Amino acid sequence: MHIHLQNPIDDPLFHFDRAMWDTAAARVGEMADHVTIGTGPAAFAAAMQAADALVCDAGIVKAWFPCPAPRLKLIFLTNAGLDRLAPFDWLPQGVALMNNRGAHAAKSGQFGIMAVLMLANRVPEMMAHQRAGRWQKLWGAVVGGRRLTIVGLGTLGGAVAEHANRFGMHVTGIRTTATPHPHCDRVLAIDAIDTVLPETDFLVLACPLTERTRGLMDRGRLGRLPHGAGLVNIGRGGLVDQDAICDLLDNGHLSGAVLDVFSPEPIPAGHRLWTTPNLVISPHTSADDPATYNPQSLEIFLENLRAYRAGQPLPNRFDTARGY
Amino acid sequence: MHIHLQNPIDDPLFHFDRAMWDTAAARVGEMADHVTIGTGPAAFAAAMQAADALVCDAGIVKAWFPCPAPRLKLIFLTNAGLDRLAPFDWLPQGVALMNNRGAHAAKSGQFGIMAVLMLANRVPEMMAHQRAGRWQKLWGAVVGGRRLTIVGLGTLGGAVAEHANRFGMHVTGIRTTATPHPHCDRVLAIDAIDTVLPETDFLVLACPLTERTRGLMDRGRLGRLPHGAGLVNIGRGGLVDQDAICDLLDNGHLSGAVLDVFSPEPIPAGHRLWTTPNLVISPHTSADDPATYNPQSLEIFLENLRAYRAGQPLPNRFDTARGY
Repeated sequence: MHIHLQNPIDDPLFHFDRAMWDTAAARVGEMADHVTIGTGPAAFAAAMQAADALVCDAGIVKAWFPCPAPRLKLIFLTNAGLDRLAPFDWLPQGVALMNNRGAHAAKSGQFGIMAVLMLANRVPEMMAHQRAGRWQKLWGAVVGGRRLTIVGLGTLGGAVAEHANRFGMHVTGIRTTATPHPHCDRVLAIDAIDTVLPETDFLVLACPLTERTRGLMDRGRLGRLPHGAGLVNIGRGGLVDQDAICDLLDNGHLSGAVLDVFSPEPIPAGHRLWTTPNLVISPHTSADDPATYNPQSLEIFLENLRAYRAGQPLPNRFDTARGY
Repeated sequence: MHIHLQNPIDDPLFHFDRAMWDTAAARVGEMADHVTIGTGPAAFAAAMQAADALVCDAGIVKAWFPCPAPRLKLIFLTNAGLDRLAPFDWLPQGVALMNNRGAHAAKSGQFGIMAVLMLANRVPEMMAHQRAGRWQKLWGAVVGGRRLTIVGLGTLGGAVAEHANRFGMHVTGIRTTATPHPHCDRVLAIDAIDTVLPETDFLVLACPLTERTRGLMDRGRLGRLPHGAGLVNIGRGGLVDQDAICDLLDNGHLSGAVLDVFSPEPIPAGHRLWTTPNLVISPHTSADDPATYNPQSLEIFLENLRAYRAGQPLPNRFDTARGY
C-alpha cells in the first residue's frame, strides 16, 4: 500500500518528516509498504498517479482537487472542521474521506479553559488598563459553581467540559440530542438553547459549522445571555453574528470575549473587531501545537488504516451529508 | 467573648456584614457572645476598649496600631502576606497574631494556572499583534510534559501545583526544606534553586517576602532560566529584580511574564513596566474574589477561635520571627 504525505502549501511549521512517520507507526504498530512525502504541485501530481492513501491538509484539497488519482481509496485530512471544503463534489467516487477528529483535544481543551479563566479574572479589562498605564484594581471571581454552557460536545467541547468540571463549574452541554456526557452536569438538545442562555455565565462555542449551525448565535440569542456574561468561540466564525458581539461588548452587556475564529479570516485591516473593547483576538491558532500536531494526526491516521485493513468502519470517517 | 470586625479604611467592596458573620458561624458551628462591626477610627477606638479579638486587614494595623486595647488577646488579619507590617513591634505583648493563610487557595490557584496557560499559548504576544491590528498566527504549546517550577508550596503554590499536576505538567516545588508535596513530582530545598532554573519552562513565584527571600530572583538567577521561559509572580514584588525582568523581556530571553505584584505598588506612572513587551500586568488582584473572600476569612477565623477556646495551638498563628 502506497501512502503519500503531502506537506501544506505555505506552512513550513506543519511539514511531515520520515522520523515523525516512523515514530507514529511504531507507536500504533501499523506499517505501510511504501510511504512518500512531497512538497509542491509536481510532487503531488506524481504521487497521485500511484498512491492508495493521501494524508494532507484542507488547503491541498482546495488547491488541487479534483485531480487524476486512479488508485486512491483514502484521504485523511489533518483538519477537523471541513466546512470550507463543502460541497464535497470534489471527492472522487469510492474514496473514503477522514478528518482528524481527536487531535485537537489537548490544545483546544487547554485554550478553552484558559479563555474561561481569563474572562472570570477580567483579563481583557485588565489589559485595557495596562495599555493606558492605569493601576486600577479589578476583582475577578473563582469559577467554582459558575455556570458554563458548551455548545458542541465533540473533541473540543468535551475537553473543555472535562477541565471545567475539575474546576468545580456547573457544566451544561448542548448538542444535537440530549445524550448524557461524562463531564457535563446536564446535556440538553440544541432545541433547548434559548432556555439555557439566560442561565449562562460563560458560553463556549465548540461545534462544527454546518447548514444547521450557521448563524446559531444570532443577535437575538446573544442578547439572551445575562448582563456580564462572557463568550468564547473556538468553533467557527460563521456560528455567530460578529457585529452583534461587537455591539454587546461595546455596550457592556457582554463583559468580555475570547474569539479564535472569525468570518472572514484573516480579519480585514480596519475591521471594528480590532478595536472592540474587552475582546481578545486569537488568530485561529487555539487548536494546534506544531510540536505535537502532525505526530498525533499520523497516529490517528494509522489507527484508521488498521481499521481499513481489517475491513472495519473507519473511526474518523467524515460524513459529507452531515458535515462533520 | 467580644469579637470586633473592623472594615477596611478605603475598600467598601471588602466590608463585613452581620449576615456574613452569621453564615460563617453557622457553618463552622462556633459562636461569640458579642460581635460588633465598625467602620472608621472612632468606632475602632471605642471597640478596642472592650474587644477580646479583632478581625481586620493590614491597613487598619498600619494606620492605628499601637493603640490602647486592654482586653485584646487575638488579632486575625484578612491578609496572608504580612511583610508590610514588619517589624512586629506594634503587636501588644501577649496578643496572638493570625493571618488568613488558606483563604486564597481557590482564586490564586486558578489565577496561577491561567497565567501559565496564557504563557504557553503566547497570549501576551497575541495581544500585541491585536493592538497593532495585525493577523499573525502564533503557535502555542500544550502544557502537558512541560516543566513548571514553583517557589513556595504554601496555600498559593500548593494550589497551582495541584492544577498543574492535573494538566500533566512536570512540577518541581522549591521550599525551605525538601519535604515531599502531594502535587509535585519532586521537591527541592531552596539551596538547590540554581540547578533547577535551567530546567524550567515556567517559573511561578508564590512564596512570602521575608529577609531570606527578598531579592531571591536577582538578575543572575533570572538569567539562568532557559531562553523562552515564562515567569509568573503571585508572591511579592520584592522577590525579584524588576528591572532585570524588563531587560529579559525586552531582549526576548523571557518569552513572557504575568506579574500580579510589584515594588512599589501602585506602579508609578511612566514606569518602564507599563510598556515592557510580552508582560501582563495584574494590579495585585490575583488572590481575592470579593464574593467569597470575607466569608472564607471569617470561617478561618472561627476555626481558630474554636482552637483558642479548646486551649489548642492556633492553626493560623503567624510567626513574627520567621515572617510567615
